[in-house]
Parts: sequence; structure tokens; C-alpha cells
Amino acid sequence: MIPRYSRPEMTVIWEPQTRFRIWFEIEAYACDALAEIGVIPRESAKAIWDKADFVTFDVARIDEIERVTKHDVIAFLTHLAEFIGAESRFVHQGMTSSDVLDTCLAVQLSRAADLLIADVDALLSALKTRAHEHKYTPTIGRSHGIHAEPTTFGLKLAQAYAEFTRARERLVEARREISTCAISGAVGTFANIDPRVEDYVAHKMGLTVEPISTQVIPRDRHAAFFATLAVVASSVERLAIEIRHLQRTEVLEAEEFFSAGQKGSSAMPHKRNPVLTENLTGLARLVRGMAIPAMENVALWHERDISHSSVERMIGPDATVTLDFALARLTNVIENLVVYPENMRKNLEKLGGLIHSQRVLLALTQKGVSREDAYAMVQRNAMPVWRGEGDFRTLLGQDKDVSAKLSPAELDALFDLSYHFKHVDTIFARVFGQA
Amino acid sequence: MIPRYSRPEMTVIWEPQTRFRIWFEIEAYACDALAEIGVIPRESAKAIWDKADFVTFDVARIDEIERVTKHDVIAFLTHLAEFIGAESRFVHQGMTSSDVLDTCLAVQLSRAADLLIADVDALLSALKTRAHEHKYTPTIGRSHGIHAEPTTFGLKLAQAYAEFTRARERLVEARREISTCAISGAVGTFANIDPRVEDYVAHKMGLTVEPISTQVIPRDRHAAFFATLAVVASSVERLAIEIRHLQRTEVLEAEEFFSAGQKGSSAMPHKRNPVLTENLTGLARLVRGMAIPAMENVALWHERDISHSSVERMIGPDATVTLDFALARLTNVIENLVVYPENMRKNLEKLGGLIHSQRVLLALTQKGVSREDAYAMVQRNAMPVWRGEGDFRTLLGQDKDVSAKLSPAELDALFDLSYHFKHVDTIFARVFGQA
Amino acid sequence: MIPRYSRPEMTVIWEPQTRFRIWFEIEAYACDALAEIGVIPRESAKAIWDKADFVTFDVARIDEIERVTKHDVIAFLTHLAEFIGAESRFVHQGMTSSDVLDTCLAVQLSRAADLLIADVDALLSALKTRAHEHKYTPTIGRSHGIHAEPTTFGLKLAQAYAEFTRARERLVEARREISTCAISGAVGTFANIDPRVEDYVAHKMGLTVEPISTQVIPRDRHAAFFATLAVVASSVERLAIEIRHLQRTEVLEAEEFFSAGQKGSSAMPHKRNPVLTENLTGLARLVRGMAIPAMENVALWHERDISHSSVERMIGPDATVTLDFALARLTNVIENLVVYPENMRKNLEKLGGLIHSQRVLLALTQKGVSREDAYAMVQRNAMPVWRGEGDFRTLLGQDKDVSAKLSPAELDALFDLSYHFKHVDTIFARVFGQA
Amino acid sequence: MIPRYSRPEMTVIWEPQTRFRIWFEIEAYACDALAEIGVIPRESAKAIWDKADFVTFDVARIDEIERVTKHDVIAFLTHLAEFIGAESRFVHQGMTSSDVLDTCLAVQLSRAADLLIADVDALLSALKTRAHEHKYTPTIGRSHGIHAEPTTFGLKLAQAYAEFTRARERLVEARREISTCAISGAVGTFANIDPRVEDYVAHKMGLTVEPISTQVIPRDRHAAFFATLAVVASSVERLAIEIRHLQRTEVLEAEEFFSAGQKGSSAMPHKRNPVLTENLTGLARLVRGMAIPAMENVALWHERDISHSSVERMIGPDATVTLDFALARLTNVIENLVVYPENMRKNLEKLGGLIHSQRVLLALTQKGVSREDAYAMVQRNAMPVWRGEGDFRTLLGQDKDVSAKLSPAELDALFDLSYHFKHVDTIFARVFGQA
Repeated sequence: MIPRYSRPEMTVIWEPQTRFRIWFEIEAYACDALAEIGVIPRESAKAIWDKADFVTFDVARIDEIERVTKHDVIAFLTHLAEFIGAESRFVHQGMTSSDVLDTCLAVQLSRAADLLIADVDALLSALKTRAHEHKYTPTIGRSHGIHAEPTTFGLKLAQAYAEFTRARERLVEARREISTCAISGAVGTFANIDPRVEDYVAHKMGLTVEPISTQVIPRDRHAAFFATLAVVASSVERLAIEIRHLQRTEVLEAEEFFSAGQKGSSAMPHKRNPVLTENLTGLARLVRGMAIPAMENVALWHERDISHSSVERMIGPDATVTLDFALARLTNVIENLVVYPENMRKNLEKLGGLIHSQRVLLALTQKGVSREDAYAMVQRNAMPVWRGEGDFRTLLGQDKDVSAKLSPAELDALFDLSYHFKHVDTIFARVFGQA
Repeated sequence: MIPRYSRPEMTVIWEPQTRFRIWFEIEAYACDALAEIGVIPRESAKAIWDKADFVTFDVARIDEIERVTKHDVIAFLTHLAEFIGAESRFVHQGMTSSDVLDTCLAVQLSRAADLLIADVDALLSALKTRAHEHKYTPTIGRSHGIHAEPTTFGLKLAQAYAEFTRARERLVEARREISTCAISGAVGTFANIDPRVEDYVAHKMGLTVEPISTQVIPRDRHAAFFATLAVVASSVERLAIEIRHLQRTEVLEAEEFFSAGQKGSSAMPHKRNPVLTENLTGLARLVRGMAIPAMENVALWHERDISHSSVERMIGPDATVTLDFALARLTNVIENLVVYPENMRKNLEKLGGLIHSQRVLLALTQKGVSREDAYAMVQRNAMPVWRGEGDFRTLLGQDKDVSAKLSPAELDALFDLSYHFKHVDTIFARVFGQA
Repeated sequence: MIPRYSRPEMTVIWEPQTRFRIWFEIEAYACDALAEIGVIPRESAKAIWDKADFVTFDVARIDEIERVTKHDVIAFLTHLAEFIGAESRFVHQGMTSSDVLDTCLAVQLSRAADLLIADVDALLSALKTRAHEHKYTPTIGRSHGIHAEPTTFGLKLAQAYAEFTRARERLVEARREISTCAISGAVGTFANIDPRVEDYVAHKMGLTVEPISTQVIPRDRHAAFFATLAVVASSVERLAIEIRHLQRTEVLEAEEFFSAGQKGSSAMPHKRNPVLTENLTGLARLVRGMAIPAMENVALWHERDISHSSVERMIGPDATVTLDFALARLTNVIENLVVYPENMRKNLEKLGGLIHSQRVLLALTQKGVSREDAYAMVQRNAMPVWRGEGDFRTLLGQDKDVSAKLSPAELDALFDLSYHFKHVDTIFARVFGQA
Repeated sequence: MIPRYSRPEMTVIWEPQTRFRIWFEIEAYACDALAEIGVIPRESAKAIWDKADFVTFDVARIDEIERVTKHDVIAFLTHLAEFIGAESRFVHQGMTSSDVLDTCLAVQLSRAADLLIADVDALLSALKTRAHEHKYTPTIGRSHGIHAEPTTFGLKLAQAYAEFTRARERLVEARREISTCAISGAVGTFANIDPRVEDYVAHKMGLTVEPISTQVIPRDRHAAFFATLAVVASSVERLAIEIRHLQRTEVLEAEEFFSAGQKGSSAMPHKRNPVLTENLTGLARLVRGMAIPAMENVALWHERDISHSSVERMIGPDATVTLDFALARLTNVIENLVVYPENMRKNLEKLGGLIHSQRVLLALTQKGVSREDAYAMVQRNAMPVWRGEGDFRTLLGQDKDVSAKLSPAELDALFDLSYHFKHVDTIFARVFGQA
């Protein structure tokens, strides 16, 4: 997590102050529940809220205590006791540090997921707008980087929309999976704490109860969470690379918005580089790389070891902050993308009509030519065009075998662009729902 | 995928014969649909089934054709034409190779997912049986590899049960995501094929329709699929490592079944090694490693490139076959696991009562001692026990500050094991449902 | 490892027959050494060679024995005893299975490294030839996919040559690291086997002695080996992607050789796709993904566990066979690459002279204009060109501030291509050595 | 990179101030070289040093400029011009941003490598001391977590020493690979800058010349660098896991130093957890995970794109800072490791003599028993011991077949521990060199 690739709303989730506040709430709600079931005095539970609810925790002081105790939760509780006084002995009763730490992480990751879902929503909105704007803007579809058949720029964006709809569903599921609360004590047996405390804290913190914990919340949940972020990041990369391709000098069908004052290159003043989407490509690699340590965290020893902790201290903030930034940046790129329909048209015509080869092939087979023969007839007229030696429509007209089967008018009809767009509406309805 | 770590049911999904059969079905159903909407003659569609439905495809012949055409689907279609004759010109009308390849892969991966889900069901069943068998078998809970507090062996297995219940849910979701059919033509515009064909083939092949494809089914679906397998493999690793720990010479609380005739070591005849679970640890690494290439496959260029293909030719079989084998092996390990309750009991008592330290701590605070003081009182009596210099219960009885607060009878009660198991039933009900 | 992406020379290294032969040699040489130091009778050592040296091991029989013993080395030794008879009791004296397995793997990986180094040599040779062929073929250099300044196609290939020179050095180093022999007994103490046996076997098998083993050869060596393969694969990917870019329809500066009879697309007969380099992109992902499990193998428990074994059974063959295939395919692509200098020239001129913007910028600063002002002067004339509104040279000539500093002749000189190639020879000398 | 896992010496390498200072030196040395070859006035080059050499760059000001220009090097140069004045137009002549950025990164990574090599040296020193201290401390060697045969604790540490000797060699090689300087202009052709400038700057910055760059230094170098760090991290993990195993309650052969005041658990005051080595396990996962994005960075598009930049902004600091911290922490753990030889002895005797089974097996075969028979004889006496039903030595004495071959005195000799340590000196000499 570095400031350059961070946004404040996500960053704040991971600040010490936020963490200590969540810890406090978990402890204080647990006291409420303990009071309710008669384990500690009601007035003590109340006193904890009264004395500490509005406290801004002194991060430096807590750090100072931790340097002695080498234990962060004990340091926090010691600091808390400085406010609360005698009642502090009721805090953390029968709980273990992980009850606080893991439940807090669940709160943080679920809040992070909320932001990521909102990010995707903003991206979806941008994609939808631009997709409809270019629903019928013709452009060449490319497979293998080679011109294939016409499509529309709206369809390209509709594909991205559909992909991020899936990303959203996965994030919602990942959020659901990660949002559990464990207050189950030293090895998860509730020996020293009643399960009703867990119920209450879960409810108050907006979480569900972890059915069975072993001091820690099981890390397969977190692995699934970070793996989901990695998959979403890969979709970010896909759209980013699409735009980078479109902005290539020879293609130039679209371009990232280039603000006044921006400099493309210290050496070459003419340049307008797709630096935002290149950046997104790199950010995607980062988020993807974090899935592996998250998965390696699953196999904790016995009821738990603490090897996951250092991993999560880094990838918790890093993966969520980076993906949040990436999604927001991508939304911005899409919203402001400069689209060049006239260049799309020029590129479409670049191959001298070859992109219509399949239609010709099909027309020939429908006239009774075998697939093999039709393929050969099309290919022998395509190859000279490919070498820049002629125009496909003209060559076909001059081919005796072809013209024996297809009249000039029939051939002309095969070169009609709108033929390719007759189902755009169907696809849009599938992707965006009926108008 | 190597025979040593393969099971036939999963392997067969990936054999050429299976693939060609699925290709044939996709092509033949597409012809049915084309006939239905009047694009090709009904009798031609029927002839395709009649002439090729019972054919065993000649893999060597197809390979031979592919060596010339360098294109697998064209090789298959050429071979198919050898059976079908003239009607073959109606096959693959308006379709592109990826329509066949990607829909086929969807069928294969969804079948693979079915097997994996069945594998998890078998594992869940084994875990449930053994968990109930050892519901109240006392064992020490360990955090950081250090004795913490008592738990039961049944709870350990219940945790695994809950974890694989989540694995199952993830597999079901991954199966849903991957099971889509695309018959949308060269760049996904349906220019040369009616969307109704896709509907029909999807229905017949047990798939849903891919809302928008671009010649290929988008690879974020596959990335999510293989990432899910990687997370499930990580859970396999967790349980495998638990068993490896339990089988350690110094621990020996459980042991893999050791068959008559089996040899543990060529050099050391006494050895009984947890080789199955060690093997599972390695297999988990393999499946996990495959998630990264799957994610790198997402960002195909424009409407598609074919870089994903070589990756999927390997990880498609490798990840599913390996995870299938691993889940089955793990089920076998659990079913036949030799459990040593008496060793669990011996280990429980190893620390001279230290595992009850928290109960003492809590009892002291409940008697009005501050948390800080109680912690110090407990720790000063714990450290000699740790060094092997005495028994915790005895030392506590001799501590003036402690005995001022807790009577001998109260102290004795704090060392009672059943105290820890009072909520086992609650947890079992959460995990396995009410009896 | 699948036949489609395998070459026989590498595949044979991993066949059971090869493995058993290496096992036999290790055991037989060990017997020679044991005889030499008087532990076993000389005639017994000789008998082992006499009776088994020309044997083709019966893989099926060994598998059959292994199904009972569940131990591959014991199965092999049992089978070996069937040939050798009574003398077989001297075989494997004081050794442990890993002595055989790990030393065998070292032999296999060093042979594999030899092939990979030879592959890189062939690739280097192809790159050198084509680089010199196109030493002065002008082409546009691109940063961010955007035209930057002129370079030559030879320089592009020279860069790849330099990169694969480094790849070669890394492979040589990885080979050196992996080529160690361990014959040190159960936990590596030589308790039951004299270190001189290890010396002798190492020498005979072309390996160096592992200074300290713990039954196993330490897996950091293997991790470094597979990580090296992953880095080399990433360089394969780089060159593959370069070619894919060059073959794009809009660029078409180079093209993979397209054989007669080859079909680019089942649907679109005109297409010529860079399928070989796309394939290489995927293969690179596969090899890269294998580095992670290899690294996870390092932390074996205590003196060893066997979790690495299943990983290596797969990635040993898979990574080496795949990279061997990829390097050979890439060599083939380079050797047969169809280069279009005239298209390179066309593309060079595409930007209306903008690629010379830096030279103009520099010339202005050399005339005393501040860098900031020069940048602004260049940029304001570049932007219209970018929008297709004019030619850069013309606009500059019309700019009063520019023409105040640079005469028409001076401006013309700034648009001279050969200016950029004056150091090509220097760079070639650095990369290929002096002629 | 988070403060908790950072050390100042490494952190400072990555601070903006350090970066700007390196940028300045590169630019200023380049001016010196330009002056030397007569491109710019000597007094201008001198003025640059005079006016800016002692400047502390204003990071906030540079950030402010970058927000407008969106280009970090231009922002720096603009800021530099504020100090230097008119001479600033000679700065960066013919150079491109990457010349500065990549050469700077090479300086930073080579400095980081120096620290890492020093870290490894400190670790080696600690390992050597402790290895010699425990050269003959008997302990059980374990394979598969199961007792195998005796070894010494010194040998365990000697293995780690040998492993980190290799780690050191790899770091030295990685440092060599990464330490190159590129000052080659826009696409690496030296069109606007003389190669002698690169020579000079390389020499001054302690780097070698990059033979061929394409605006950027090729990223296979960086991939190899970060892959090396990942392999070293995996070795850290191995040693960390060894210690975690040794500290397990049931094993307790060694323990991390536990400082006064430290608290093991908020809930269980008796606990002493191996938290440092658990932490190292997690840190190793983090560093390992960064190898993948570094490898994905290799395939930049054409002469370069900037996707690598965001990756390196994070993993540059993160990987080096984390590994530096991990190595230092591991050194600290080794230096202060509390070793319990008496527990090692107790564990050694735990199996009732079974660890001598191989010696008995060998002795029997040396008496003429076939290997198969000897194996069976040993195993049938081993199994009861395994089940806790007797002592191995006694049972062997009572076995008629065994006692027919081995006298009581011969059997006793087979249970002698020193037998296993006769080659410890040989191994130490291999690892540490002759005394």
C-alpha cells in the first residue's frame, strides 16, 4: 500500500485508530452480553462504554506498551485499563486475543468488500453508459490480433460489463464468506465464555457467527476472499490491455483522456501514452500475486499458529487498497475514454474486404459447394489480398468457380456491414436486461 | 496428470474419445436446431446422428489430419465428413471452432466439478462419522504448536467438516459459473448463426447460455474455477498437515492405516510414516500453483487469442485429476485413521496442569484480583512447571496470594476436564445440524 | 507434459526405463566403491554389473511389486534381486532410498539442463543470423505501444539475443547447483556408509558431492532450478509477445511462417494467426506457475518429509519438457519469421514525422531555448499532427518561434533516419562481440 | 513494507530523498561526461554540482509539480531547474526518463543486495557458532516427522549454514545481474546521447554497462533478482519451521528466547510460543509471492511499456525490506536460541531403541541373512515396541532367528550412539572448511 495507489476511504479502514475502535466495540459489546447473562455487573459494562466510547486511542502509547509485552492485544487492553480503571478487569473475560483480532479483521474485510462492490458498481455504470453510446459503432473484431469479423464498440464494452457483473457477484459472495464473528475462547470450545456472547457481538458488528472456530477463524475463508480479489484484478487487467491495444499508434481507435499540462514523455513531446491502463496492468499483477500467500495461510498448525498474521498485515491493506484504486482508476478511464469511430471505420476497411470471407464461404456452401471446396475457393482469393495484391470483392467476381455460384448482387450483399449487427439488441438485452 | 495420482473416472473426462464425442454432440445438436429454424434440411440433421452417433472416432486418423491442417477442429470435421458424406457440409454452419472447443470445455469442467463435489461428499461423510465417534475424546488443543487448553478430537474433525462444507459450496458455485455454452460465431455477434441454436445446444448439453461471448467464453470464469480448486486444495493441505503432526513420534495421537506388506523405509524397518498425507501436501501445492496461469489467461487480446489453450490443455486435466485423487485419498485416510485416545490423554497431562492456567486466571479475577495481578500470579507459578520443576496445582496451593483467594476445593474444580466440553454439543449442532 | 508439447529427447529422460537405469548405475557404482574399501566382496560388485548391466527393466513387474510394498525403491531392489540372485544382499548396503532417488533426480535435471542449454544455443544462433540480416532494417521503436523513435529490426533481435545469453548463463548456473550426489544414509550422517562411496558415485555419475545432506538433497537447489526455468520462460514470453504484436493486422511487420495446407480458422479462411507465439505465451505461464510449488518444497520437516516428491514427479518432467518444447518452437519461429521491411517503413512514416520530435526538442535547447519552452514549442506543433491535421516538418517550418531558431536545412537534417543508427555497430559489438 | 517488519538501513534506500539524490547524481555525472566530450559547457556541468550537490530536495514540491505533469522525472527536473537556473537546460540532454529511473533502481537494488548479503553473513556467523557449540549434541534425526536415526544438533545447524552459503552465492549473483546502468536514450539507440556518457555514469555509480537496452533495462534481470529473494525466503522458512517443530510442547528440544515482560498469550499465561519463527514463516510467504509479478513484468511490449513500474514501486521496497527484516530476525533467533540437550536425549530414547533398527538390519545381512529375511526379522520385533509392548534390544535378544546370528555383545554394540557421529568431523570440514 503506497500513497500513490491509495484512496482515503479504503486506507482509513486499515489505520490503527480504526482498528482500535473496532477492538473496543468488540470488547464493549462482549461486556454487554456478559452482563446480560449475569457474568459481570451491568454497571461495569455500562461504565466501559461511558468511559471509553469517545476516546481517541493513543497509538503511540499502545505501541510503547507493546514494545514491552510484545503482544498487541494485551497492549491495547492495558491502555484501555488506563481509561476505564477498576472495571477493566471485566473486559476480555474468557476471551482470547484472536477473538478480537479475527473478528476485527472480518469487520475490516467486509467494509473493504463494501467499497470494492461500490467501485464495481461505478465501473458498471460507466461501462453501461459508454456501451449504449457505442452500441452500433462498427469496429473490427480481432482474434489472435488479426482482423476477424465486424463487431461494435458497444459490444466490447458490454462484454466488460458482463464480466464485471460476475466480478460483483464474486465480491458479494466473498464478503458473505468473510463476515463471520468468533468469540469462542482459547481453542474455540467456549470453555470460559458463553456462546451467547458470540451471538450478540456478531449481531452488533454486522457479522454472522462462525460455526466452529479454533481460536482463529479458519483461513480458507480468507484464501477465498483474496483469490476472488485476484480474479477481479485479472478482469481489470483484461479491460486495461484492451484499451492499451486500442491506443497503439497503428490502431488508435480509442485513447485515454490526456489532460492539459500532462506530459507524455520527458524526451518525446508528441507522445500520448496509455499510462493509466499500463499502470492497471501492473496493479493487477500485484493483487494477483497476493492470492498465493493467502492460500498458503490456510494450513495453520493444529488449532492455530500465527504465521498468517504477518501475511495479512500486509496483504489485507495492500490487496484491498490496490484493487480499490485500480477499479476507481479504470472507471475514470472508461468514463473519459476518447473514442475514434472514424479510425475504427478505417481499420475495418483495411483488409480490402477479407473480413467478409466467412460470409462468402457460407454462401458458397449454401449453394451446394462442399465445405472443403468452398474453403479452398475463398482462401485462393484471400491470399493475394493479404499480400496487398487486390481487393477481395473484385477478385471473387473474377473467380470463375465463385461467380458460377454467386451473382454480383449476391456477392455485394455479402459485404454488407449491418448484417453483422442484427443481434446486437439481443445481446444487449441479455447483458443489461430488457429496456 | 500422471497415472500414479489419477483415478479413472476423472481421467476419462479428458480422453480424446470423450472430447470428440462431446464435439460431435455439440455439432449434431446445432444441426438439429438449424434444421428446426429452417436453415438446413431436417433430413440432413437426422442423417448426421444416424451416420455418426455410434461411431468411435479414430484418434490416430484425426491426429494425422491435424498434422497437415494444424487445426484440431478442422481435423475433426474432416474426419467426421468421412463418415457422414455429403451432409457434412451442413455441419458447423456459421460456427467457429471456439464454439465447439469452449462449450466442450464447459461440459468437461462441469462433469469434473460433479466428481469433485461427490468426492467432497464422501469426505464429509467420513469426517462426520469419525467426528461423532470421537465427539468426547479429550485431546489437547494447541496454538503455536504449544499446549493450550483441552478440546476433543471430534471437534478437530468437526472443524474439518465445516471447512469442507464451505469447499463444497465453493465447488457448486464454481461449477455453476463454468457451465455455459457459447455458439455465437466468429466474434460472438451471431452474424452467421441464430442465437436459438445456442439456446438449444445449451439446453441439450446441460449448460446455461453465455450472455455475451467474443468467439470465446470469457476466461474470468475459468480463473474463478481453478482458483476455487486451489483454495479447496489448501484445505486438503490443512487437514493433511494436521494428521502429519498427530503422527509425529513424540505426539502419536493418530496414525495413517499401515497395511500388511507395506514398507515404511528401505533402511529403517520400524518406521511408519504418514506418507499419504505428506503426498497430499505436495498435491495441494501442485493444484495451488495452477491458479496463477489460469488467472493470467483472463486478459486475452481483443475478442480472443489462443494463449489460454496450452494452459488449459494441461491444467484442465491436471488440476481436476489431481484434486480428485487428493480428495479420495484424504477420505481414505480419514476413514481408516488409527486414533490413539490413550496417547491423547497422556499428552494432555504432559504439562503438569498448566493447560488450566487460564481458568485459574479467570477465577482470580472473579475473586476481585486485577487482571494484571492475576496474570502475574499465574505466570510465576507456571514458569517452574514449564521448566519441569513441579506441578501446577501443587504450586498454586502453596502460593499465599493464590490460596488467599481460592480454597483447595475451588482450585481442584478448576482442573476438571469436563468443564471444557460443555459446549461441544452446541458446536456439533451448528456444524452437523440438530440431531 | 502432454505429447502435443513434448520432444522425444527430453521426454526420454523422464521415462521409467531411464530412471531405473540410473538407479541401477548408482547402486552398482556404490557396490564398486564398497568393494574397493573392503565392505563387500569385489566379485559380488562385479557380479552385479555382469548380471544386470544389459537388463531392460520390467516396468510392469516393478509396478506390481510396488503395489504391495508401496515403496518404489524397494520394489526396484526386489526386482533387481530377481536377476542378481544372492549377491543382491550387497546392493543398497547402508544406503537409504533417497540416496538413490535424489541422486537420480540430479542426473535427470542436469541432463535436462544440458538439453535446455543446447536449445538456447540454437535460439541464439537463429537470433544472431536474423539480427545481422536486419542489422540496418529501419523500424519504429515503440514505448507504451506508441511510436517513439526509429530503431532497427536487428536491434530488436539483438536485444533478444542478449536476453537469452543471460538465460543461458542462468541455466548453466542452475545446472551446476542441481548436479550434486548424496549417498549419506538414513539421516545424512554416513553412519552406515563411508563418505568415499559418495565421492566415487558422484564422480562416476558426473556430479559433485553434496556437502551436507539430511537423507535428502536440500530443496533450495531445486527451487533455484525451477525458478530459473520460470525466468527463462518469461523471456520466451517476451519475444513471443513481440512477434504477436508485429503480426497484428494493423502492424504486420513480421509474420510466423504459414505452411501450405495450414488453416488459420475454421470459419475465416483468410486468417493467418500467430498461433505459435500465442502458444508460447501460454507455455510460459505454465512453466512460471511451477516455480511456486518448487519453492514451497524447500521447507521440508526436520531431516526430510516426502511432500516434495509428488510435486517433483509432475514438475520435473512438465517444466523441463515444456520449456524444451517452447525454446525449440521459438527457434523455429525466429528462423522462419517472415519479415516485411516495407511495412516497417510504412509504419515508420505513419506519424507524419512526429517521431523526430525529440531531435527537434534537443536542437532547440542547443540553440539556447529553455527545456520548458522547447517542450512547449514542440508539443504545440505535435498535437495537430496527432489529430491528423498536418505534417510535423511543415508545421514546424511555419512556427515563428521554431523557425527563428532553426533554418529549413537544419530542420531537414533533424528528420534524417540514419542519424539514429550511428551506434548500431557499437551495440552489436557489445552484444555479439567484435566481428 | 510496514514499520513493524522494517529496519531503517533498508528502508532508507527506498525513501524519496534517497531516490532524488541518486537521480541527481546520475544527471550530474551525465553532464560531466557530456562536458568531457564537448556536448555541453564544462562550466555548466560544474555549476550543476555546485548549485545542487548539497540540496535537500523538497519532496512535497516535487509531488506538487507531478500532480500537474503526471510525470515524476519531469517533476524532478522542473524542481531541479528551480535551483540550478539557466544551466538546467543542459541537464537530461538526450536522455529519457527511464535512463534515470532504471539506473536508479539498479543502484537501489544493488545497495539492497549488499545489505541482504551482510544479513546472510551475520546469520552464517550465528549458525557457525551455534553449530560448533552443538557439534556433538546428540539428537534424533527425523524423516516424515518420525524418529529415524541419531544425528547431532550441530549437524542440523551445519545444514542450515550450507543452505545459507548457497543463498549468499545466489544473492551475489543476483546483485551482479541487477547492477547495470542504461543511458541510451528514447529507444536505446544512443541517437541523442553518446555511449561514453553511459560508460562514465556506470563507472561513477558502481554499475556495469547494460549491453543493450530499449529505453528500459530488460526485466528478466529483475525477475531473476526477485526470484532469488523468493528462494532465499524459502530457506528462511525452512529453518523457521525447524525451530517451530523443536519448540512444540511434546518435543521441546529448543526454544526461542523469551524476554522478561513478554506475554505469550492474553488468555493463557503459561505459554511460550515460537512467535518469531511463525512470523518468519509468514514473511517468507510474502516474499515468495512477489516473484510472480516480477516474472510477469518481463514481457513488456516492444521497446517498453510501463506496467512494470507500479509492481516495482511496491515489491522493490517490500521484498527487500521484508527479507532484510526476516534475515535479521532469524539471526537473532539463532543467536539466542535456548537449546535443551537433555530433552533431545529423552526424545532419542523415546522409541525404546527402535532407532537402531537399521544397524540391526545391516548386521544381519552382513551375517549372511538375505535382505528380505533380515527386514522381516527386524520388523516383527519393531512392531511391538511401536505399540509400547516392550523394548527393542530385549525383544531382539529373545528372537531365536536373531540371536542365532548376533551375540548379546554384538547386539549391544549395535545400540551405541557414537557409532553415528564418526563422520561429523568430515561433514563439518566440508561445510565450514578445515579448522
